[in-house]
Amino acid sequence: MELDFQKLNGLLPAIIQDAASGEVLMLGFMNQEAWDKTLASGRVHFFSRTRGKLWCKGETSGHLQLVKEILVDCDADTVLIKVEQLGGATCHTGYRSCFYRRLQDGRLEICGVKVFDPQEVYGRE
Amino acid sequence: MELDFQKLNGLLPAIIQDAASGEVLMLGFMNQEAWDKTLASGRVHFFSRTRGKLWCKGETSGHLQLVKEILVDCDADTVLIKVEQLGGATCHTGYRSCFYRRLQDGRLEICGVKVFDPQEVYGRE
Repeated sequence: MELDFQKLNGLLPAIIQDAASGEVLMLGFMNQEAWDKTLASGRVHFFSRTRGKLWCKGETSGHLQLVKEILVDCDADTVLIKVEQLGGATCHTGYRSCFYRRLQDGRLEICGVKVFDPQEVYGRE
Repeated sequence: MELDFQKLNGLLPAIIQDAASGEVLMLGFMNQEAWDKTLASGRVHFFSRTRGKLWCKGETSGHLQLVKEILVDCDADTVLIKVEQLGGATCHTGYRSCFYRRLQDGRLEICGVKVFDPQEVYGRE
């Protein structure tokens, strides 16, 4: 099984979906190393484009994503990973999904469910 | 409402999800023009990286994607579009979703539902 990391210069988009509810939680990018670590550990890893390094989702917050199922698309250039989201929330803002805003009449309105207070999760010493 | 097209040099990943079933159907990339046309027409448009041009999803097959809801992520660099998939199938292979293969013990096995015969849809004169 070969994935195509070349279309985005070594990165592959990974869609993360809640295995139980079907809610789409986030999209991240994986390089080969992140993909390998995800498979080996059963915990989702990404390559952070802004920080330029590998990260295990939830390494700071404890909100790990446990891999339940991996699907590969027709071109093998995108993966869909169904997960159990520990802590019940994916987004660093505290919302269950990073897609917590809906476009309505040209403006964004919040439609997501807030699960935690980011100050409490990230703000502690 | 401003989307961030800069992280991928003018492209933005768009996750397409079936509005009724919650099944993730595909991922495509939009440039500003594809985004504007999607909003204006209510039909999903992408920028094809391989063909280097705008395309309306379903323009050949008739399997248009009608926009039902648009969600934007926390960084405004990815969108999630819930659609009604005309024809019942997204993938050019005839499967309902482009994610019709599951990774199992290092190999891909087909787990998707085939809705049409691509020869019949694309093979006609």
